[in-house]
Amino acid sequence: MEASSSLPVKATLANVFHISPDRIYFDQTTGFLQIDGQNAFKPTINNGVSYASSDVIAEAAAEATKQQPMTFVLIHGSWADASFWDKTVAELKSKGHAAYAPEYAGHGKLYDPNVTHEAIVESVVNYIKSNHLTNIVLVGHSFGGSIIQKVAEQVPDQIHRLVFFDAFVPLDGQSVAEQLPPELQGAFGELVKGSGNNTIPMPYPLFRDGFVNTASETLAKQIYQSAKPEPATPLLQKLDLKKFYTLNIPKSYLYFTSDMAAPQGDTYGFHPAQSRHLGQFRLITGEGDHMSAAYAKPAYLEEKLYEAARD
Amino acid sequence: MEASSSLPVKATLANVFHISPDRIYFDQTTGFLQIDGQNAFKPTINNGVSYASSDVIAEAAAEATKQQPMTFVLIHGSWADASFWDKTVAELKSKGHAAYAPEYAGHGKLYDPNVTHEAIVESVVNYIKSNHLTNIVLVGHSFGGSIIQKVAEQVPDQIHRLVFFDAFVPLDGQSVAEQLPPELQGAFGELVKGSGNNTIPMPYPLFRDGFVNTASETLAKQIYQSAKPEPATPLLQKLDLKKFYTLNIPKSYLYFTSDMAAPQGDTYGFHPAQSRHLGQFRLITGEGDHMSAAYAKPAYLEEKLYEAARD
Amino acid sequence: MEASSSLPVKATLANVFHISPDRIYFDQTTGFLQIDGQNAFKPTINNGVSYASSDVIAEAAAEATKQQPMTFVLIHGSWADASFWDKTVAELKSKGHAAYAPEYAGHGKLYDPNVTHEAIVESVVNYIKSNHLTNIVLVGHSFGGSIIQKVAEQVPDQIHRLVFFDAFVPLDGQSVAEQLPPELQGAFGELVKGSGNNTIPMPYPLFRDGFVNTASETLAKQIYQSAKPEPATPLLQKLDLKKFYTLNIPKSYLYFTSDMAAPQGDTYGFHPAQSRHLGQFRLITGEGDHMSAAYAKPAYLEEKLYEAARD
Repeated sequence: MEASSSLPVKATLANVFHISPDRIYFDQTTGFLQIDGQNAFKPTINNGVSYASSDVIAEAAAEATKQQPMTFVLIHGSWADASFWDKTVAELKSKGHAAYAPEYAGHGKLYDPNVTHEAIVESVVNYIKSNHLTNIVLVGHSFGGSIIQKVAEQVPDQIHRLVFFDAFVPLDGQSVAEQLPPELQGAFGELVKGSGNNTIPMPYPLFRDGFVNTASETLAKQIYQSAKPEPATPLLQKLDLKKFYTLNIPKSYLYFTSDMAAPQGDTYGFHPAQSRHLGQFRLITGEGDHMSAAYAKPAYLEEKLYEAARD
Repeated sequence: MEASSSLPVKATLANVFHISPDRIYFDQTTGFLQIDGQNAFKPTINNGVSYASSDVIAEAAAEATKQQPMTFVLIHGSWADASFWDKTVAELKSKGHAAYAPEYAGHGKLYDPNVTHEAIVESVVNYIKSNHLTNIVLVGHSFGGSIIQKVAEQVPDQIHRLVFFDAFVPLDGQSVAEQLPPELQGAFGELVKGSGNNTIPMPYPLFRDGFVNTASETLAKQIYQSAKPEPATPLLQKLDLKKFYTLNIPKSYLYFTSDMAAPQGDTYGFHPAQSRHLGQFRLITGEGDHMSAAYAKPAYLEEKLYEAARD
Repeated sequence: MEASSSLPVKATLANVFHISPDRIYFDQTTGFLQIDGQNAFKPTINNGVSYASSDVIAEAAAEATKQQPMTFVLIHGSWADASFWDKTVAELKSKGHAAYAPEYAGHGKLYDPNVTHEAIVESVVNYIKSNHLTNIVLVGHSFGGSIIQKVAEQVPDQIHRLVFFDAFVPLDGQSVAEQLPPELQGAFGELVKGSGNNTIPMPYPLFRDGFVNTASETLAKQIYQSAKPEPATPLLQKLDLKKFYTLNIPKSYLYFTSDMAAPQGDTYGFHPAQSRHLGQFRLITGEGDHMSAAYAKPAYLEEKLYEAARD
């Protein structure tokens, strides 16, 4: 390799391949440059700066960003439908994964105010069975946490890992609504009464502050368009989760630190209050609110889901 | 557009316009490259990399960083004066906003150990009225939180949104001091006694650890120079906030995650303990301590204030 | 300086010297460009963009990243040995510091299941004395927190500052184990019983979730190789810490926000629950889990330790 054909390693990794200098270490003992703690290649050192050819750097970057191929099944939350995952699915596929985001009973094109928790779970189980999906990373977002708990009870052998993404994790005998503070439960009760059809319409100001607080106004209103009045029954049903709490499936919790869909803090926060219900789990944290990343930063969300999902 | 005049989009946005690749998504269905979830332009794709002309990229970057023009009024906290906001005001103006940082009674050039909470509030209200300011984003930092609560009671129709930036939010009938743990209240009591003039001098070690913990020593000492002994009365007065808690003005809370001016945690932390008093609000989080960003990272602070302020 | 020899300042600082644009401010009053709030140089302004020669920019970057030389003594935690610090020591030295990471009694090459807390403390004290180390920044990671508490009692005058890095800080009369929730103490008790030699073997799944949750699987397994069964006695001994809590040595707490070696939250989290025991301290926060950064991001860990250590 001639010096003239060489590029500075750190700057090239950062500026061309978006791999931060933090992730790079030069091991003086072995002469290896490491990325994320793994030997990448032996650079040429000149005045304390590492150089390598563009081919060598590109190959190392590809290796460092390669993902173990997995099968994702993504379960959306309330006031949303399966289109919530459209961009995430595209990003997962671009990284070599299989990714499915089934619409479940009572939501999206299957909209039905009278749907039950059981019907939703059944629709997801049927989807998994009819598509012969195995070795699944089953991801539940928000209300979807309670769905993947119950799905796991029915098809535990098809599931490789459960990933709860800012998700509710009711204890045995609890409802999803009971994870929220009494005043919020009360507000939801009023909205149900006012709906006339046993749904909870989401007022825009509450959606703006609770679900998309970090978004621009344009994006917030765009996302709000998917927020049909949520069927109330599945949120209010007390769930038998005895079997779930005996299952021996690996679990991860992905927590976005600006998420306010549940009030932050030790008592009601997604983390540590809901996550705590899992007992042992892998914590992955990220920046963002409840819904915006799926629309505005899908590559970031993909990366965080992968960190939560990988072995 | 010729390939020769084209630049790689992600690298150019990142390296020239400081827009992170996380914010970019290429929608294969429409052919649009999106920034922050919004269609920007249709790039040319070559080997999986997006290209566009420098003009097109520059225009998209300008659009993505454009801010809705607003009118900011910035209220500083204790052990500080209006110069705390100097750089933030400059950054806000450079982004097209109107920005005012009035000195208030008893502080800075108006220094008076015997000032009261009422006098401070009155001076801010007078400033707003005499400058005919309307549609204001009223920002309170630290102790300034209690000031904007009381100002909002007097001129609610002039206020578009209240932004509490690591600010105290006393409940009705409480003082600012009562938001702190008893031992800290006691320490302040001792300092008042020792002062001889009803002020609280701030010892440098306490300032270093509580207000500027992430700063270099040079910067810490520089900022400390603005820390005159704080008039004690406004911190100790119990405040009638009944009207504030009936107001229907949108509220945001900007929380910097290394802020230790109040002890972090569920009981005394700015967030979630003080922020919780607001009921519904928009949470924006950032990195930093209580005071350093205003001096060392004003563009970052400006951006976070805007995220808290925008519609 | 000719325009032709000039480089755009922000892009050059970011792309060549990895200094984020957030840290830069142009003071229109003085004409100075500031980095981290400190005047750096007067750039040429053209169309609102700052320019300077590569020499001027390089010098400013060097000044901004210069560190006050200090003497670090690094004390590792449980299920680890002194090699935990290898890369951190190299990074500290490359920044001009003296750095020592002594193996302590009962660990690494000195492995002994029957070692006591006193023997560990004595071995560190002896190391400090025999190497005539003074003005030390004494860093304790995890279990190492309890070691630096006791070392500080014995050689307070040799210590410049104590840095607790996701470390346990037992109160007087408590053991390290007592900082953990009862169920985890119980699980450790079972592991001790099963060990047959009064040690606590660390099962890989617990290590993966609790110590290296953000790592790749490859890195996780690599780090796990250093995890010999931990001698149980030092974790279970109740410690007399009366003297420690009278010492007047400056203290910092470095908290990594994805650390799950202790359950996060107000009751057991490293921060704010363990850190709170210190009373007044400087908080520095970072991204990462309990162990991965020392292997995968040592330059980042070095920077965070320096922020915690500097005056």
